[in-house]
Amino acid sequence: MGRVTARRRVIRVRDGAVNTRPDTLVTEEPLEIRLNGRPLAITMRTPGDDFDLAAGFLVSEGVLGRADELANIVYCAGATADGGNTYNVVDVRLAPGVPVPDITLERNVYTTSSCGLCGKASLDAVRTTARWPVTDGPAPLRLTPELLYALPDRLRESQHVFDRTGGLHAAALFSSDGELLDVREDVGRHNAVDKLVGAALRQGRLPLAGSVLMVSGRASFELAQKAVMAGIPVLAAVSAPSSLAVDLAAETGMTLIGFLRGSSMNIYAGEQRVAL
Amino acid sequence: MGRVTARRRVIRVRDGAVNTRPDTLVTEEPLEIRLNGRPLAITMRTPGDDFDLAAGFLVSEGVLGRADELANIVYCAGATADGGNTYNVVDVRLAPGVPVPDITLERNVYTTSSCGLCGKASLDAVRTTARWPVTDGPAPLRLTPELLYALPDRLRESQHVFDRTGGLHAAALFSSDGELLDVREDVGRHNAVDKLVGAALRQGRLPLAGSVLMVSGRASFELAQKAVMAGIPVLAAVSAPSSLAVDLAAETGMTLIGFLRGSSMNIYAGEQRVAL
Repeated sequence: MGRVTARRRVIRVRDGAVNTRPDTLVTEEPLEIRLNGRPLAITMRTPGDDFDLAAGFLVSEGVLGRADELANIVYCAGATADGGNTYNVVDVRLAPGVPVPDITLERNVYTTSSCGLCGKASLDAVRTTARWPVTDGPAPLRLTPELLYALPDRLRESQHVFDRTGGLHAAALFSSDGELLDVREDVGRHNAVDKLVGAALRQGRLPLAGSVLMVSGRASFELAQKAVMAGIPVLAAVSAPSSLAVDLAAETGMTLIGFLRGSSMNIYAGEQRVAL
Repeated sequence: MGRVTARRRVIRVRDGAVNTRPDTLVTEEPLEIRLNGRPLAITMRTPGDDFDLAAGFLVSEGVLGRADELANIVYCAGATADGGNTYNVVDVRLAPGVPVPDITLERNVYTTSSCGLCGKASLDAVRTTARWPVTDGPAPLRLTPELLYALPDRLRESQHVFDRTGGLHAAALFSSDGELLDVREDVGRHNAVDKLVGAALRQGRLPLAGSVLMVSGRASFELAQKAVMAGIPVLAAVSAPSSLAVDLAAETGMTLIGFLRGSSMNIYAGEQRVAL
């Protein structure tokens, strides 16, 4: 169970009191699933039960239905440049005679190309792909706790569809003054962020210097990556971040805030932008 | 905004009172993103701002960074067999001279191959791929509301990691007596279900006749699909289902329950398995 959680330093702010302590985060790392040696899928997951994950994925795809159709599952060695086993690549071998499916890969795509074979590679991929650093704006960005505490309510007030369905994730962009710049809702949290960033691109507003991205749920690596790629200096989430999201924020200099509720929050990286 | 939400019949149960009414659900449909005419990605999304979604996706991938790198975005006509425009396929054309990225598709895979170009195609793909119907077991499954009401607490009690991190989705399998059979947690909700189903496959327990799958969050199409592919007759979620999840449940005969909290729930399909 060691890899299921990870410890990171966090600055906890509770009703004005500030203290720094280690916090337990859920681990997030990429897993590549290979089928008979051929790469099939990459997913960001919490390590553990990886053989079950690969087998279950193939049940959902209609490839496997019975235990005897599965020959074996192994971790691939030599997955990294130095030949080490990251335990992030599994190869599923089908039993002889089981048809290898014609899974049209071009129809099956949706994760970021920055997913590497380990967390480190995922971070490196973002760094080498990013066109600009996360950007404060004309002056160093300093946000008061009060400004940040007001954002979740402003996000909820702007969620028109959520009120009716309870089924949507929301993402909003705020200015350094706490002004709502734009908001999008979607059944997929990554889509809501893509819609915000895409609108900004089309309006010539990238990088989104000096702005805050607020999301309604958790802060995963994928969301942190999207914020970094858009040059956004502050990502705030109502719920918990993953370990890899925190690592990415720390490495790129982005401020990452989680559990932003009422008059409390956890700051996982980039605390210089919060006026404590 | 018409396609953002959809109306479906729901049976609401509140402290013993039962009534049937139309309910508003968030719409979920596949979107295929093409780059210079070539299929690149499929994502399940809520329709609306599709051009922004496609552009933002390409910002995250490092393909786009400035508005003038984008020539145009169009909905592809002729996407269905009868040549109609489903408004579920967009083609992004890069400006002349902008490098088309070497996005290795085999590194970018993770959604189900059953994603079609419209909601209907997605449903058809599950029906044609499924190896067995959703299965009651030796006798028709009849669950009391009290048994169902107890499941969320049992799920939470079994979430060891969540208590420490607040960052995990959970999925659990219960028997028809409400006994916890297995539980998995993961940073990705689809992974938690894959791990449950994969373990069942490897133990020779598929199809999971007579069992209930309980998930900690929302019930998306992807989760409903995974339940159907494993033969699970009842999917229960703490939060809202999407329109396409409800449609899939209705078409395959699976019972779909949402907002299962305290002594209330919404039944979206397969109400014959609930003893009201």
